[in-house]
Amino acid sequence: VLDLSELADRYRRNLLESVIPFWERHSLDRVYGGQLHCLTRDGKVFDSRKYVWMQGRAVWMFSRLYNTVERRPEWIEAARSILEFLRAHARDPEGRCYFSLTRDGRPVFLQRKPYAAFFLALGLIEYAKTGAPADGMLQEAVALAGDIERWIADPTLLGRPALGGAAPVRQLADIMVQASLALELLAVDENPRYAAMLRRALQQVQAHWLPEQRTLLENLPLNGAHYSESPDTRLLCPGSAVETAWFLLHAIELLETRYGESHARTAALLYDVIEGSLEAGWDREHGGLFYFLDAAGLPCLQLEANMKLWWPHTEAIYALVLAYTRTRDEKWLDWLSRVDAYAFRTFVDWDCGEWFGYCDRYGTPTHQLKGGPYKGFFHVPRCLLFSLERLRSL
Amino acid sequence: VLDLSELADRYRRNLLESVIPFWERHSLDRVYGGQLHCLTRDGKVFDSRKYVWMQGRAVWMFSRLYNTVERRPEWIEAARSILEFLRAHARDPEGRCYFSLTRDGRPVFLQRKPYAAFFLALGLIEYAKTGAPADGMLQEAVALAGDIERWIADPTLLGRPALGGAAPVRQLADIMVQASLALELLAVDENPRYAAMLRRALQQVQAHWLPEQRTLLENLPLNGAHYSESPDTRLLCPGSAVETAWFLLHAIELLETRYGESHARTAALLYDVIEGSLEAGWDREHGGLFYFLDAAGLPCLQLEANMKLWWPHTEAIYALVLAYTRTRDEKWLDWLSRVDAYAFRTFVDWDCGEWFGYCDRYGTPTHQLKGGPYKGFFHVPRCLLFSLERLRSL
Repeated sequence: VLDLSELADRYRRNLLESVIPFWERHSLDRVYGGQLHCLTRDGKVFDSRKYVWMQGRAVWMFSRLYNTVERRPEWIEAARSILEFLRAHARDPEGRCYFSLTRDGRPVFLQRKPYAAFFLALGLIEYAKTGAPADGMLQEAVALAGDIERWIADPTLLGRPALGGAAPVRQLADIMVQASLALELLAVDENPRYAAMLRRALQQVQAHWLPEQRTLLENLPLNGAHYSESPDTRLLCPGSAVETAWFLLHAIELLETRYGESHARTAALLYDVIEGSLEAGWDREHGGLFYFLDAAGLPCLQLEANMKLWWPHTEAIYALVLAYTRTRDEKWLDWLSRVDAYAFRTFVDWDCGEWFGYCDRYGTPTHQLKGGPYKGFFHVPRCLLFSLERLRSL
Repeated sequence: VLDLSELADRYRRNLLESVIPFWERHSLDRVYGGQLHCLTRDGKVFDSRKYVWMQGRAVWMFSRLYNTVERRPEWIEAARSILEFLRAHARDPEGRCYFSLTRDGRPVFLQRKPYAAFFLALGLIEYAKTGAPADGMLQEAVALAGDIERWIADPTLLGRPALGGAAPVRQLADIMVQASLALELLAVDENPRYAAMLRRALQQVQAHWLPEQRTLLENLPLNGAHYSESPDTRLLCPGSAVETAWFLLHAIELLETRYGESHARTAALLYDVIEGSLEAGWDREHGGLFYFLDAAGLPCLQLEANMKLWWPHTEAIYALVLAYTRTRDEKWLDWLSRVDAYAFRTFVDWDCGEWFGYCDRYGTPTHQLKGGPYKGFFHVPRCLLFSLERLRSL
């Protein structure tokens, strides 16, 4: 049986004694500001580029720690330095966000997607909540949120051509992005628009439900095609499905608490998504969650499909903690025990701090890096912090 | 000791009894023309898109078989059908080549790179050599070759923005592409321009030489930076280095034979590249060639870095056959024996024909597919055919 106070204690120690110190010690750029987040196992910089997703996420995380754990000056200072770097360099003359910058802030790559802007907006909002001088940050975030909605609705605005044979899909990520933005904005602005965004997300997710596997389609076809017709629409990502589920459970909590609404049937669906995604995604031979699956068991196009990545596991851990603390159903503890044991055995680096990110199917690290273009100060500390908060509420 | 006549016999049987029949049986689209090349282990279509790289490569391969093995009507007919599909659908109104098309030819994706055009040009040239009616094909290929040269020299012509922080590099692939085009064109057109392209490639490759590992840098920095400063310029791909080496040895053969030139020092360098790349890339624990390495032993950004892919092994096999038949140095046979044994043990599918493409570090297939967006009727049959031709010359 799982000892939840041991669990909370282990998460607290991992967060405060291993994960946060790793990033504080190794990642802050004292010369140019911002965060050098591509780090080897022991914290050496192996790529000095600054990826905008990771900078925005780090601003959000440092600010969140400051807002909810302790008002440590070094956390607000880290958030400030990274956000200042982003505000100076992240946007192009047309207001789009670059994907990556040089160490000193010159643009390297512009991805024709809305996600860099999304993580900048998250950082702006959470930083504004700290009460630090935040000239125009909230207004900037609100304007960005509007851009992001428009870019999601019409990707040609980002310079992506509309080609006649490209099948339109709705990405699960886009539902999560909009729900997440609305949740953050509602914490600082009572605008009913944001509550409406949450209700729309709860509506939209239903169409992604795949009853056979009890999970969510990553890409829902919007042209009337059946999902089974293309590998893009057959794609399953258990980590993304459980992450979306917990975000939308947060949305339901807020709508219930603040507006007295009931979303019990959607909540039940989201619990099914958590359970179904873990059942469909768990590797019964070697343990751990597969990164990608094909809903029909056909080959995935992604070469990394059968690898084990850290983040589907952090998202599963928090989704399970949330499901248990909301329902008190013991079945969630069986899953939590299994995922937690696998994650701590496989990813945690007990010698150098932080977690490894990328393992092969058998759980052996394929990469020793602690941070890279897609791994930074985000999934691990967010999972530990959010799980701690929920476990404490018991 | 390696029995070279057994080897030739095995390659001939694998080519004629397993590889070619697999593609003839499963891939030709009798409805729309072109090739359905995303195939499961037993030849079922799991993605009906037609990727232009693979279509162009298949035209080249079927035409080459017709030109050098046997004038089988089904081979020229397959080449004709795929090439006709490409000529009808592959190019956008500005003359660029799409990356992928729907089954019926509508554009899905435009990659801002010159490689789709390159494989179309290869297909056009080899098809024109068959003597089949080839209205304007050679002229089209020559014009494309000019476009490709311009696109390589200035990628903004393909719509890729020039951003201030993007460090300019020369990709090894671009040397190979230009050498390969020049070699194919010289077979049909004595224009001294093409010989000059070959000499330039032999010149350019020298700057990619990395003495520590005796291999070639995938991306040579062009801004005066040291290669060790970025993961992009530290990137090594043993498969790509040996493929470039054998292409350039073909270039040297042609310049020696047709123009009486001597390139002995460059040839010696290319032999060193073959040996050094295999030594640096071979997995001493589990066998096989790693896909990517970092020249400083730092983490690679590519998640698939430590996987074993079929094509570095096919390229190594032919490079070794070529090196042995040209030099008669027995050291090549040791390597050939090792790579051949690994490849036939790991990738060949004795039950359903063709080769698996994607294995994990331990040599277990991660994907059962026989064809995908980047695997088609190309590396395996080219390796077997070219190796056979050289082994027969002994």
